[in-house]
Amino acid sequence: MTCRIDALQYANWSEKVFRQMRAGGLDAVHVTIAYHETFREAVANVERWNRWFERFPDLIFQGFTGDDVRRARAEGRTAIFLGFQNPSPIEDDIGLVEVWHRLGARFMQLSYNNQSLLATGCYEAEDPGLTRMGREVIAEMNRVGMVVDMSHSADRSTIEAAALSERPIAVTHANPHAWHPALRNKRDAVIRAVTENGGMMGFSLYPHHLKDGSACTLGSFCEMVARTAERFGVRHFGIGSDLCQDQPDSVVDWMRTGRWTRGPDYGEGSAAAPGFPPQPAFFRDNRDFPGLAEGLRAVGFDAEEVAALMGGNWLAFFDASFGPRAPAREVRAAE
Amino acid sequence: MTCRIDALQYANWSEKVFRQMRAGGLDAVHVTIAYHETFREAVANVERWNRWFERFPDLIFQGFTGDDVRRARAEGRTAIFLGFQNPSPIEDDIGLVEVWHRLGARFMQLSYNNQSLLATGCYEAEDPGLTRMGREVIAEMNRVGMVVDMSHSADRSTIEAAALSERPIAVTHANPHAWHPALRNKRDAVIRAVTENGGMMGFSLYPHHLKDGSACTLGSFCEMVARTAERFGVRHFGIGSDLCQDQPDSVVDWMRTGRWTRGPDYGEGSAAAPGFPPQPAFFRDNRDFPGLAEGLRAVGFDAEEVAALMGGNWLAFFDASFGPRAPAREVRAAE
Repeated sequence: MTCRIDALQYANWSEKVFRQMRAGGLDAVHVTIAYHETFREAVANVERWNRWFERFPDLIFQGFTGDDVRRARAEGRTAIFLGFQNPSPIEDDIGLVEVWHRLGARFMQLSYNNQSLLATGCYEAEDPGLTRMGREVIAEMNRVGMVVDMSHSADRSTIEAAALSERPIAVTHANPHAWHPALRNKRDAVIRAVTENGGMMGFSLYPHHLKDGSACTLGSFCEMVARTAERFGVRHFGIGSDLCQDQPDSVVDWMRTGRWTRGPDYGEGSAAAPGFPPQPAFFRDNRDFPGLAEGLRAVGFDAEEVAALMGGNWLAFFDASFGPRAPAREVRAAE
Repeated sequence: MTCRIDALQYANWSEKVFRQMRAGGLDAVHVTIAYHETFREAVANVERWNRWFERFPDLIFQGFTGDDVRRARAEGRTAIFLGFQNPSPIEDDIGLVEVWHRLGARFMQLSYNNQSLLATGCYEAEDPGLTRMGREVIAEMNRVGMVVDMSHSADRSTIEAAALSERPIAVTHANPHAWHPALRNKRDAVIRAVTENGGMMGFSLYPHHLKDGSACTLGSFCEMVARTAERFGVRHFGIGSDLCQDQPDSVVDWMRTGRWTRGPDYGEGSAAAPGFPPQPAFFRDNRDFPGLAEGLRAVGFDAEEVAALMGGNWLAFFDASFGPRAPAREVRAAE
């Protein structure tokens, strides 16, 4: 089915943003509800989403399954899927994985830049790989149907997660390191581990992940997509824009420093440019999704491939990932 | 449909108890997961239930809708519905009502013996009626589909709740005060307010709620059911056994004193008999449900009435109560 999915956004949510999702033809968006939040704080963010679902039922509703994407498309609404960029909402309690799955969390990063209880983040000097708890939590996420997301994790941890997980994992938002050598972008060995195990990567439109940053062109971005798809297989890719629309700079400060440092920490920014960077001209907000599809067509993808990249691949991944694990170990075999 | 439902139990859960539910033909049981627990503590109790659901899938599963009772019956399992005897799991946060509904909570008492943030408990000297927050929370429970349960609330609060609630409310476990004048049993004005507004009461088999206590006979209990049904209408009644099987006395102490007093507080017991009283001979555990049906037949109920009292009435109530509110105010009119 033709559909349009963005596998990562963290906007300053408002009716304006939801209307722009509709204008851009988004059938589903995976939204972040936790960077450093505790269980209770992340639940409070669910409560905020519940109010938005109640206020704007003609625009959005909470998605739980791949079929909710189809329903969204049929009804002209956008299905919102919840996820975490850090495992902080499960605290030290593996039982919270299933509780969160019931509440609708469908993606969880095992770490966010720093070491977590589960895995190492991409900003740490050393990456000892998955922790004892990390291995247990991956098995539990596999059991209930929550996707292991390694977007902000370090290489070894990511490669180990891809190998250990009995279900395909994801890097919801990043680009190839070979195109733009940012710390957050992924080296070939990482992309290979994720995709060879059936996983997905979403191409990011966050300026720090783009060659030439905010000056990146649509052509450059789409050429990168083409080269990556050629190398690893088009079916493993989609969009994960990392759109942080309308956020005040205090939010990027929370993302980077949480409560773990008295700060400052500039992450991908710098002391000279600590805030959110300006979006590239070709992707300012959700209304620019149709332009991405045109850009992909222009670099040589056929209509079917464009549809796959714009949402079809994520939908197939949602279908396979969000429910309880099939009996025994047939999942990998079915890939 | 013929089915068997118990609208209140708080056993020391075990495979033994679950097998006894099956032996007694229970299609559904509403179980308590909070007396004084905070949000996080009650979530930990959900986690414990998730483990039981995982360990004993041939015996039990979590119920969310009336149709889950039908599924349980078709599959020879027991659907377990979660609920609270106190609003402590929503703390001071009305947004947690919807979060809890998503997690499966289907009943919430507005107070447990003492004054709560929402309503007055039956042990308080004064009952000023519903609080400001209580009125708001009833509207929210009506909206999402969580049943207002007033089993341990005081009379005025209960009558006000029955009148204010736009959907029928419940007293899941109590008996008529006229039969046995215990503080927890309900005066006629209370039973009338609940039933006239379409609500349900579950007859309790907890000895402190029974005439002659542990020595109560099946005949006496069933005669009481017959007189009550005659007076208020058979369709408003079912069973809410309040079975607290295999619990150590430390549990009844937690129920009574929580963290609100340095104790002791004997509740319905006394310094001389502070623990759980022995069950009556005719109702020791779930295996005695078929005997209740026979007893009801013996006092003159026909087969249809017995089926209604043993589960059919609760099932109709579950069907009408557990989903989001129908548009506008058609619910009461449809009664």
